[in-house]
Amino acid sequence: MTEKLPLRPVDPRIGEVIGGAVNQRGVAEKVAAAAAGRGVTDVFFLGCGGSWASSVPAHVTLSAHASGLISHNLNAAEFLAAPSPRLSERSLVVASSHSGNTPETVAAARLAKEAGAYVVSVATDADNALGELGDVTLTYGSERTITSAKHVLLGQLAQELLRLDGAALDFEAVRRGYEALPDVLARVTEEHEETAARIAREIGEADMTYVVGGGASYGLAFLMSVCYLTEMQWKKSAYVSTGDFFHGAFEMVVDDAPVILFRGEDASRAMADRVWAFLPRFTSRAYALDSAAFELPGVPAAARGEVSAPVLATLTTRLADHYESVTGHSLDERRYMHKMAY
Amino acid sequence: MTEKLPLRPVDPRIGEVIGGAVNQRGVAEKVAAAAAGRGVTDVFFLGCGGSWASSVPAHVTLSAHASGLISHNLNAAEFLAAPSPRLSERSLVVASSHSGNTPETVAAARLAKEAGAYVVSVATDADNALGELGDVTLTYGSERTITSAKHVLLGQLAQELLRLDGAALDFEAVRRGYEALPDVLARVTEEHEETAARIAREIGEADMTYVVGGGASYGLAFLMSVCYLTEMQWKKSAYVSTGDFFHGAFEMVVDDAPVILFRGEDASRAMADRVWAFLPRFTSRAYALDSAAFELPGVPAAARGEVSAPVLATLTTRLADHYESVTGHSLDERRYMHKMAY
Repeated sequence: MTEKLPLRPVDPRIGEVIGGAVNQRGVAEKVAAAAAGRGVTDVFFLGCGGSWASSVPAHVTLSAHASGLISHNLNAAEFLAAPSPRLSERSLVVASSHSGNTPETVAAARLAKEAGAYVVSVATDADNALGELGDVTLTYGSERTITSAKHVLLGQLAQELLRLDGAALDFEAVRRGYEALPDVLARVTEEHEETAARIAREIGEADMTYVVGGGASYGLAFLMSVCYLTEMQWKKSAYVSTGDFFHGAFEMVVDDAPVILFRGEDASRAMADRVWAFLPRFTSRAYALDSAAFELPGVPAAARGEVSAPVLATLTTRLADHYESVTGHSLDERRYMHKMAY
Repeated sequence: MTEKLPLRPVDPRIGEVIGGAVNQRGVAEKVAAAAAGRGVTDVFFLGCGGSWASSVPAHVTLSAHASGLISHNLNAAEFLAAPSPRLSERSLVVASSHSGNTPETVAAARLAKEAGAYVVSVATDADNALGELGDVTLTYGSERTITSAKHVLLGQLAQELLRLDGAALDFEAVRRGYEALPDVLARVTEEHEETAARIAREIGEADMTYVVGGGASYGLAFLMSVCYLTEMQWKKSAYVSTGDFFHGAFEMVVDDAPVILFRGEDASRAMADRVWAFLPRFTSRAYALDSAAFELPGVPAAARGEVSAPVLATLTTRLADHYESVTGHSLDERRYMHKMAY
């Protein structure tokens, strides 16, 4: 199979963008201090599509370790349709939208402000509706390195909230893990090139692709299936959590069915292991994106689970570039999105 | 198109099964009293696949109205991989599995018991591992009327918990709504026959089917897409929430793409309305299952939102019967499920 579009170069700014995210840890500390000051009980992550998905790791981490803070990760339209009675000045609302102007997310942030909540806006820059609404703003300034940057911004915020909650975690190791990421993510992108090219070559033109991920990687399964394959490649795809895989979707794994599995090093790894023990026996086209396959220099062992999500997000985003090259379908082409009101 | 398998008769026991579920309101009251006695703070709904999906309406209702109770709806394997630090004797755990023997759900219920939680088991009968573990058991005794029965059992439980929480709701109207359901669900099944037959005839053999549902109906989108189409019909399908529809999946709606939308009468209806305003303009094969199209005798207006889920579940289950008839693929056929350990 020949390339139908030239392969985009690796984002030359990846280290700079991730470094910029890491350097906003001070904002995360400020948010945690504000949360402590007002006795925050609930954290609401709000977004739509890929922005919802990018909050999954922080939500999963908070849910797994916080005893005094309740974490919610909600589609902004769902949040608006039935606002939680727990929304109050003791709520921390983290509203994410790449452009900062997604209508449902802006409306949700506005509702949260009116309820007295402390609002953190997350967008590529601060010059937009979310930026105006936020008590503070987290930004990443990129059109290409988005999900991994959000993982860093929200992951660091979750760490500061867990510190406030009194969780017994190795915060210092995780801090060093995040600080290593600017170099690490640039490096894993290069190390991944051959694998990404091979996956795109072998299943880029496939008819239907299943994507499986659990724990912090559930959002990556959504990102790959819904954002990259469905929205940006107009390909048939479905995603399923590793926990649900054996309760339905696995019935479709036969012959050469294309399946992509995310294997992070967080608490969900055993679930992914079960899926990986199954897949290659029943399909000739099973692929795993596995953070454990990479060295990650400077990331302490105790931080590998935490940084698996931005590592795997980096591999996923680059895999999408290779799909574009193989299929000839630009990742920027849309039928409806940003072209019509809804 | 001719029938490839005879159409199964409508479940003659539907009224009896739903009546049996309604009659377990006393168990729900007992659970709520126990929850009050131990000062329950968190409700964990646990299950896998369709059992997870069947808890969506109760979880959505609790999340929308409870200020003092936190509701979680989790895949049982995810729960086991990273148990919540909030799990304690002040937790109410509602573990659902049709057989009562799903390994992950049984293990999750056991973990909950060991943590001192009050455990409600939900299964077709009590003679199984979940039944042994539960402090109380909710059962429905059917191989055909499953999801709607679980909706009734868990919906009534959510009502009693909301009463305990002090929510300002019309509990009496909802009680009468549930009491009307045995007759109503038998009736809507018959009224739905022609539509169900037409949908199955027109898209039963389609290549890829999208299913859209939000709020309480999100679980029904999962049920239709993952359980019925993927697992039981081996068809390509993906599901998406109404809130996320315009953030990815709608790019695939073109020409004659088959899309099934759930329109309940709960707080999520406006989200479904947005999707329905879009669909018929861009595909010739858009279908809505809409509870508002049915009279529902005896259901007070104030209860229609609450009973939308079991009404739509009934339509969905019957639609699957019509698929089976059109495709000739038995709903009981499996490649792997119940045939291999994982």
